[in-house]
Amino acid sequence: MANASAGAPLPRLPAPIVGRLALVGMGLIGSSIARAAAATGLAGEIVAIDRDLDVLDRCAKLGLGDLRTADAAEGVREADLVVLCVPVGIIGAVAGVVGPALKPGAILSDAGSVKRSVIAQAQPHLPAGVHLVPAHPVAGTEHSGPDAGFATLFRNRFTILTPPEGTSPEAVDTVAAVWRAMGAKVEVMSAEHHDRVLAITSHVPHLIAYNIVGTAADLETVTEGEVIKFSAGGFRDFTRIAASDPTMWRDIFLHNREAVLEMLGRLNEDIAILARAIRWGDGEALFDLFTRTRAIRRGIISEGQETAEPDFGRHRADAQ
Amino acid sequence: MANASAGAPLPRLPAPIVGRLALVGMGLIGSSIARAAAATGLAGEIVAIDRDLDVLDRCAKLGLGDLRTADAAEGVREADLVVLCVPVGIIGAVAGVVGPALKPGAILSDAGSVKRSVIAQAQPHLPAGVHLVPAHPVAGTEHSGPDAGFATLFRNRFTILTPPEGTSPEAVDTVAAVWRAMGAKVEVMSAEHHDRVLAITSHVPHLIAYNIVGTAADLETVTEGEVIKFSAGGFRDFTRIAASDPTMWRDIFLHNREAVLEMLGRLNEDIAILARAIRWGDGEALFDLFTRTRAIRRGIISEGQETAEPDFGRHRADAQ
Repeated sequence: MANASAGAPLPRLPAPIVGRLALVGMGLIGSSIARAAAATGLAGEIVAIDRDLDVLDRCAKLGLGDLRTADAAEGVREADLVVLCVPVGIIGAVAGVVGPALKPGAILSDAGSVKRSVIAQAQPHLPAGVHLVPAHPVAGTEHSGPDAGFATLFRNRFTILTPPEGTSPEAVDTVAAVWRAMGAKVEVMSAEHHDRVLAITSHVPHLIAYNIVGTAADLETVTEGEVIKFSAGGFRDFTRIAASDPTMWRDIFLHNREAVLEMLGRLNEDIAILARAIRWGDGEALFDLFTRTRAIRRGIISEGQETAEPDFGRHRADAQ
Repeated sequence: MANASAGAPLPRLPAPIVGRLALVGMGLIGSSIARAAAATGLAGEIVAIDRDLDVLDRCAKLGLGDLRTADAAEGVREADLVVLCVPVGIIGAVAGVVGPALKPGAILSDAGSVKRSVIAQAQPHLPAGVHLVPAHPVAGTEHSGPDAGFATLFRNRFTILTPPEGTSPEAVDTVAAVWRAMGAKVEVMSAEHHDRVLAITSHVPHLIAYNIVGTAADLETVTEGEVIKFSAGGFRDFTRIAASDPTMWRDIFLHNREAVLEMLGRLNEDIAILARAIRWGDGEALFDLFTRTRAIRRGIISEGQETAEPDFGRHRADAQ
């Protein structure tokens, strides 16, 4: 299996890649980076920053971060690399606090799921000599908060970097090295292209999942209890991503509006054609589509982006 | 966890529920019933029937069935219970072969995912004294064929019985007892209601999954390679059910046309409203929906219909 080593610890580096790493936002992503950074030694020192004191308290109990603070400006002051792990809707506000405190030569990065908006929000707050290297780790689970993170979350998953034109290549290399140390595969593309690719591979799937779960809950002729009981027929697969963090996802849709609406338009066209094939009894059109889509899953499994276990390995999880 | 015992073998019965059990079609479902029946001793004897000699050969190698034959009429002749495990599009043709060979008092059942059409197709072929008890185990994986089956596939999953009015209660009880012996929970409802419930919990989710995977593969601005690489953002969840058996699913849509189109219409309305909320930047509407859908997943987990492991337990599967 492509991911056969996902259970092993991340290998430790001979020397740190950066001196001080500051993480702003200690949820699923921030806390996973903190764990991976500690496990690999990729940073000389880790600062865990969160405005929520309960989250900081959990971080202390979990041993996340060498230093912890609710004061973002203070926390990033001596950092060589700052990663904003907050919902994309508040990137501008956080950059406004963090930006002026950054030292010359520091790199500001993030982990947001949309990239054009992040750049537009962050750029006005960057002092001269600070490098902006936006990043998006395409990894996660439906759980949130510092307890949900784990060091191998990013292993074998892609992290996409979208440096604006003219960004220092050394800064890009540093951020790439940090992600590779956490086991990620790194790709570089434009923010525009990123937002379009992720609209179809992530944003629209989430939107459709939220939508179908919402529709099912609202039906008059089928009770919510029935939807829950008989969900193993396929519906339950959609509920996983429809259980993802509501704030994070609200912000993604509001900040990648054009690409999401464009892809949704395409999807709607295709739904209309499929509905017509069903209405007219065109079995051949259905069979052809259903055969094509099987091949895509095989591609995802052989690329190492999915388990080859039937049913996502659910039965194995059940058996524990 | 509700499914904590899924890894343990099924308990063996003190005595068989039926004498001879004949299974027509030895794919994922038929072969899983054969394994569960052998493990529990729910039948005195199991006849494995398939028109495909390669499948029968695999059954022989896997030790499935006490008797094996490609001749369905011959195979069901002395059976007390016959379960048709074939795509719903050929239920009529198979019932035409099997029906005349059934002995008085025999029960004819099936495992199809639509029920009104199964009843309409099978009923004309039933000799007097034969009981029709249609059944639908809401369980499965994306894999097909006799090698894909396993004895605990039905454990903790629901099996829905839709006996036509006037069906012998004893025959219904026998079929219910057989499914319960395989670990299933049994519900009885009308075929009409079944087809509507499954349209939203299973058929429309599959249709949407096939559709989104097909749309993604057809985009001009995003390559198929990119869709595959960055699928961990949500898309890959859809590819599992979009990798299900094409023949089975073509038949389901053609044989549950009205309910599927009705539910799809509801879904489209809701998509339009969601698209408008995104276009107008109505974050509150999005947040409210995304919060509601999280609760549905919790319901599914606490009903024992889903693993509580993050990411379906994928990381655990990866780590093996």
